[in-house]
Amino acid sequence: MQALKNKIIEEGNVLSNSVLKVDSFLNHQIDAELMQQVGEEFSERFKDAGITKILTLESSGIAPSVMTSLKLGVPTVFARKRKSLTLIDNLYTAKVHSFTKQETNEISISQKFITAEDTVLIIDDFLANGQAALGLMDIVEQAGASLAGFGIVIEKGFQTGGKELRERGIRVESLAIIESLENEKVTFKEEK
Amino acid sequence: MQALKNKIIEEGNVLSNSVLKVDSFLNHQIDAELMQQVGEEFSERFKDAGITKILTLESSGIAPSVMTSLKLGVPTVFARKRKSLTLIDNLYTAKVHSFTKQETNEISISQKFITAEDTVLIIDDFLANGQAALGLMDIVEQAGASLAGFGIVIEKGFQTGGKELRERGIRVESLAIIESLENEKVTFKEEK
Repeated sequence: MQALKNKIIEEGNVLSNSVLKVDSFLNHQIDAELMQQVGEEFSERFKDAGITKILTLESSGIAPSVMTSLKLGVPTVFARKRKSLTLIDNLYTAKVHSFTKQETNEISISQKFITAEDTVLIIDDFLANGQAALGLMDIVEQAGASLAGFGIVIEKGFQTGGKELRERGIRVESLAIIESLENEKVTFKEEK
Repeated sequence: MQALKNKIIEEGNVLSNSVLKVDSFLNHQIDAELMQQVGEEFSERFKDAGITKILTLESSGIAPSVMTSLKLGVPTVFARKRKSLTLIDNLYTAKVHSFTKQETNEISISQKFITAEDTVLIIDDFLANGQAALGLMDIVEQAGASLAGFGIVIEKGFQTGGKELRERGIRVESLAIIESLENEKVTFKEEK
């Protein structure tokens, strides 16, 4: 998606060979218009997949998810990383290790919001080693729902998450795939 | 806002005299179409206030904020409750106590995203005792920015947060004000 790649080039900060900071439009400050375009793109790619629900993880996955929800006409459910006093019973839970935050979170969703009748599109801001992806997939499986695939805003193609999912036959649609962050430069994977 | 009140009546769960659970459309599952209407309503109410930035708190404030951002054509910045490895330097921070979660969080935003030139609209899903509101206001003050006011999806009118803010002359626009949750029934404050 060219508008997204342009934004990454213009505003992304390469902090190391593996860390790209995009806090001016995705992870901290949010460019709502760009998120709307992201939502339109995911919606276009998955419009024939029979999606009934979008599943994401708080917090940076929420903006692209709700914009996709709006286009597809289905709700978003966001998994929580921490328990709330009003979210305690009948949960699906999974463990997710974050290398960026150096911690393991138990993510959870209320069982009433994903059921065996659902066809789920998982959306997230980043796909790197795939830990969050596996946790969200685990929840979809526990619910007995069908997984339509993943909608990823930025995939770090030099890490193994996307490759592993695709090798398992799972559909992964990434709007920008980064091949390398070496020499403080963002290089995108060529699109076929 | 009638569509919101209808949704609260239809889907809200009164858990006690002070706790209303709205996890089917706002706090866990998100009704994107309703959030779009919420965004249109906030945008209409604040369209002449010269807003340059929307400030909210992860996670439930994000959906109504980005929908308002889209209509007003300005970015949303969401304060984080936990520190990230890529969000460490040059932060504004404030302490916020959550009675629902029984914990105190240090919320933070990067200084580069709110400046003295900004006119800020703070949006949040709930206003109850006003702890989160005060923390977000504190950040706006630290930045030397102007505060246009608060856009609140659901205000608990029987708690003191809204009253205290209005007594200080701060504009608070709440789309649904709940007068009471007694007898497991939602009673809204009459609109003038």
